[in-house]
Amino acid sequence: MGFTDWMYTIQQRTESTLDAALPQVRHAPSRLHDAMRYATLGGGKRIRPLLCHASGEIFAADENDLCTAAIATELIHAYSLVHDDLPSMDNDVLRRGKPTCHVEFDEATALLAGDALQALAFQTLATRCPNIAPERQIMMIHLLASACGSRGMVGGQALDLAAVGQQITQDELELMHIYKTGALIRAAVLLGAHCGNAPPDALEHLKHFANRAGLLFQVVDDILDAESSTATLGKTAGKDAVQNKPTYVSLLGNTGAKALATSLQKQTHDILSPFGERALRLHELTDFIVERNF
Amino acid sequence: MGFTDWMYTIQQRTESTLDAALPQVRHAPSRLHDAMRYATLGGGKRIRPLLCHASGEIFAADENDLCTAAIATELIHAYSLVHDDLPSMDNDVLRRGKPTCHVEFDEATALLAGDALQALAFQTLATRCPNIAPERQIMMIHLLASACGSRGMVGGQALDLAAVGQQITQDELELMHIYKTGALIRAAVLLGAHCGNAPPDALEHLKHFANRAGLLFQVVDDILDAESSTATLGKTAGKDAVQNKPTYVSLLGNTGAKALATSLQKQTHDILSPFGERALRLHELTDFIVERNF
Repeated sequence: MGFTDWMYTIQQRTESTLDAALPQVRHAPSRLHDAMRYATLGGGKRIRPLLCHASGEIFAADENDLCTAAIATELIHAYSLVHDDLPSMDNDVLRRGKPTCHVEFDEATALLAGDALQALAFQTLATRCPNIAPERQIMMIHLLASACGSRGMVGGQALDLAAVGQQITQDELELMHIYKTGALIRAAVLLGAHCGNAPPDALEHLKHFANRAGLLFQVVDDILDAESSTATLGKTAGKDAVQNKPTYVSLLGNTGAKALATSLQKQTHDILSPFGERALRLHELTDFIVERNF
Repeated sequence: MGFTDWMYTIQQRTESTLDAALPQVRHAPSRLHDAMRYATLGGGKRIRPLLCHASGEIFAADENDLCTAAIATELIHAYSLVHDDLPSMDNDVLRRGKPTCHVEFDEATALLAGDALQALAFQTLATRCPNIAPERQIMMIHLLASACGSRGMVGGQALDLAAVGQQITQDELELMHIYKTGALIRAAVLLGAHCGNAPPDALEHLKHFANRAGLLFQVVDDILDAESSTATLGKTAGKDAVQNKPTYVSLLGNTGAKALATSLQKQTHDILSPFGERALRLHELTDFIVERNF
């Protein structure tokens, strides 16, 4: 199977697994369930699920276990976007080419939908995966929770808000992104490896990969935000500049940001090389994300 | 040890365990960590931790494991209060005798603090408890996540918002409370029992107890809201009536609500009787909550 077919297959499985995990609109409270599904289904590149599957393939992990871990990361991602878009946060009206959740529904419903999506992520990851030792599954839940918390994704959002309009250094910007987007990307990669019962040294190695990859994706995001149109992105373009948010482009210029991306991409290749052909999908996926213009 | 001393001891242990689990303000992001601690420490009756410990005592559960499960429920409770008080929800300014989190900090920080507290609850419950079989611990995480989700606490908040200004029946009001406050109370009772490796039939029996107790506490809450002053409650009193929210008092009148409370209290006694003296604390705690006027 070529990479594009592989990616499409995983995206389809992610969609159907999410669909099955999300509560039906016919069950009360309907409006809340409608908002949860609206915020999660029918859009998104499913980068975290793809990373989880690609990482799991290195260790020949079970497909069903991978789907469980993958959608847990995507449910967290979906909840974070809903809360991020709220008026008291980024106050955005467009996401994945559609009105944001609080615009389509209302603020209270969007807040609660995000809260419930977070709970559903942990409920999902606490569904017993028969091919994973239970002690390891508990560690996986701990890993995801830690990645989402105040010293992970949510902490990064707090640092991001605090940085608006501030002069910050490249090191500070890197720290913010390691928290804000890096932590969940790292969790996705590690959860996939855990599904395949990866040994500790391989997990350490993949942590190193994920840290570089997370930064790489952020640099690419910043370049896309500066260069693309809103129609292409499916979310409001150029808003980093409008909101006076520090980005790799504002800090290093367009050329500097692109040079950093090239360097990080090379590093991810080097880190993956010991895994050889088993890391083919992870390798291809990294290149794909860098070269995307969607 | 008398009941009051027992209660005080558990409250103190809950406070110190929460203090140790919450991130320090000196660690970045400081403001977020400050808000998380503000919302959680130094207040609250710790009803859920007390229920968890009282239930665990029936099965001679390990104290440390009980503390872990107990604070997981309290972190969820604290997060739900922070989000409930936000302007887009109940828009309240007073909680536990202090300004609410978004008043003391700001809306974005309060939103993120709530999000991070939820993640911390699952991170805490995914800390390995050595006296509990790992398969059971995974079930406990699933139980808590399910109790917090769209068909638990968050679903109840959605139903509550939808009910403002509506005429609803006693059955509908009961369903809303089973979700909104009942689900987490039930989780607290069951998590305590799980810590003591309770057998399935005892868990079923306690589920029945917790369902009645949850409603009982809600009826008492409604009576207190209608009768007490803001100073006594430490939160805005009489707001159910102001917001035109259906309550047991608005539905049954003061006398009817009190009669319902007496009947539910009798039911909880009957349900606990097979456990005999082992359920002493759970029995005393239920009576205490009903007879409180704080």
